[in-house]
Amino acid sequence: MSQSVEQWVERIRSGDVRALARAITRVEDEAPEAAELLRLLHPLAGRAYLVGLTGPPGVGKSSLTDRLIRLLRGQGQKVGVVAVDPTSPFTGGALLGDRVRMADHALDPGVFIRSMGTRGQLGGLARATKDAMRILDAAGYDVVIAETVGVGQSELDVIHAVDTVIVALSPAGGDHVQMLKAGIMEIADIFVVNKADLPGAGRTVQQIQKMLELVHPEGWRPPVVEAAAAEGRGVELLWQEALRHREYLRESGEGRRRRLRRQEDAVLDRVFARFQAAVQRWTAGHPDWEELLTEVEQGRRDPDAVAEEILRSLGLSSGKAESGML
Amino acid sequence: MSQSVEQWVERIRSGDVRALARAITRVEDEAPEAAELLRLLHPLAGRAYLVGLTGPPGVGKSSLTDRLIRLLRGQGQKVGVVAVDPTSPFTGGALLGDRVRMADHALDPGVFIRSMGTRGQLGGLARATKDAMRILDAAGYDVVIAETVGVGQSELDVIHAVDTVIVALSPAGGDHVQMLKAGIMEIADIFVVNKADLPGAGRTVQQIQKMLELVHPEGWRPPVVEAAAAEGRGVELLWQEALRHREYLRESGEGRRRRLRRQEDAVLDRVFARFQAAVQRWTAGHPDWEELLTEVEQGRRDPDAVAEEILRSLGLSSGKAESGML
Repeated sequence: MSQSVEQWVERIRSGDVRALARAITRVEDEAPEAAELLRLLHPLAGRAYLVGLTGPPGVGKSSLTDRLIRLLRGQGQKVGVVAVDPTSPFTGGALLGDRVRMADHALDPGVFIRSMGTRGQLGGLARATKDAMRILDAAGYDVVIAETVGVGQSELDVIHAVDTVIVALSPAGGDHVQMLKAGIMEIADIFVVNKADLPGAGRTVQQIQKMLELVHPEGWRPPVVEAAAAEGRGVELLWQEALRHREYLRESGEGRRRRLRRQEDAVLDRVFARFQAAVQRWTAGHPDWEELLTEVEQGRRDPDAVAEEILRSLGLSSGKAESGML
Repeated sequence: MSQSVEQWVERIRSGDVRALARAITRVEDEAPEAAELLRLLHPLAGRAYLVGLTGPPGVGKSSLTDRLIRLLRGQGQKVGVVAVDPTSPFTGGALLGDRVRMADHALDPGVFIRSMGTRGQLGGLARATKDAMRILDAAGYDVVIAETVGVGQSELDVIHAVDTVIVALSPAGGDHVQMLKAGIMEIADIFVVNKADLPGAGRTVQQIQKMLELVHPEGWRPPVVEAAAAEGRGVELLWQEALRHREYLRESGEGRRRRLRRQEDAVLDRVFARFQAAVQRWTAGHPDWEELLTEVEQGRRDPDAVAEEILRSLGLSSGKAESGML
């Protein structure tokens, strides 16, 4: 690094896309300068409108995102997209296909698209994605869209970190009742039934609305928007509903609650990451670690007792009563 | 609880299936008595042969498991199955359909099938699954099979916790090169190409073998077994290869390495869970936590600085140099 991190941040702030891209990469890689970067960028963020777009594979999330980008670019807004790719070993991470989309907007400096794959530790993807959104926010993007396939805990974590959650479904998906049961009703702020020209669209909308009556008896009632993103239909209405939700967030206090929860996540992510590093150093520096594990393996020592020993060695006052169990 | 945990463990040890089922549930729910249960069961475990069976949806993992159960039951071995269900909000957890399979073996006391769904915190599924396998081991099951769909980090964690990893593919899956690239070659000890009567089976086997030459130049070379589990074909051969791998584990020292890694995981899982609980208590007991988060949100405080404060308050000596960053 010949340039200082301060200069780097200044370049990001002034709209240097290469500096921005490199910052996200360094944070994703957990490079040494990442913490300093995030620290300096942190006070610059907080102005962007963060939108999560999730749904099963094949509902047309990419088309929806593309159309939203076009709409927002037409209004002169800068748009950042973070596509979360769970990189299942069985899909090879080809779920989102953002390389194709990159090309569409490659010449527009007001659009930044980045896909985040699984690297490193459990939870690393969610953390890196949230950091990337924060960086785009700090870099002056007006709207930051997190697009996820919605198959894992990491992605739910990401979805919890946005202002407005849009859940995309399609009539072709078959029986939606099942998926609606499993927690999606609770996290969605807006539903969009894409590919609404396919048979069954009306039935899908009705199913969603029926279940919404049960889940949201008061407060914000998530609207259900019909769209056909491939032809651009319904996307303007979708965005109107998003802005209506943003207004609701402001007026109801829910927006503040979400923002604080997001900061809490950011703080606790850092706490756990540092702790994890400390534990790794501890075990790496233990002269008889393997012997100790052998005793555990042979049933001569209890895993709980060893865990307690580690916590004590690290200075954490332990003991069942204080620190709880499991 | 009218009965003591000691009595409970005694009942599990003596083959009481209801006591066993309840123990797994309590551990999954992180009930107060779970730690004590696991502590008492721990020295009883360590004899079972732990097998992981993973692969994408639709390759016939359930049929393979069923046929393995029948084969092993014919040899008089007790078999435990833990089916890991990622419970995606978009599938509602219906991926494995073990209720149907339960019925098949419901009258056989030598078979115990249990599916684990996502509950609670990130990482909770993997932890609960590993604990369930340990409990089945302690309860005297000779072979414990962990069946996973292989789509998430939790499942990779589980797979890392077994003796032998079987990866199931089917010719119908299309292009396997992609998935083989993504880390599957590295974790598989045995490949089984199921539905080998479908066209393309030979090509699939060849693709796998070609890639294996690159990934495993020495040591254990994962065999590729063709099977048609629905008709029972190939399952006996599959099991022979599993036993051959078990022998390799014994002779090469790799088995010991895996067992120690498994115990390390168990210990560190407990360390992190306790730490997490301690952090939750700390934030819950902080008189100005929300105010502090507000300052973070407004950019007046840095998340890193707050993280440091928490770690210090918990007694962890922090400071960048010692505890690393990010």
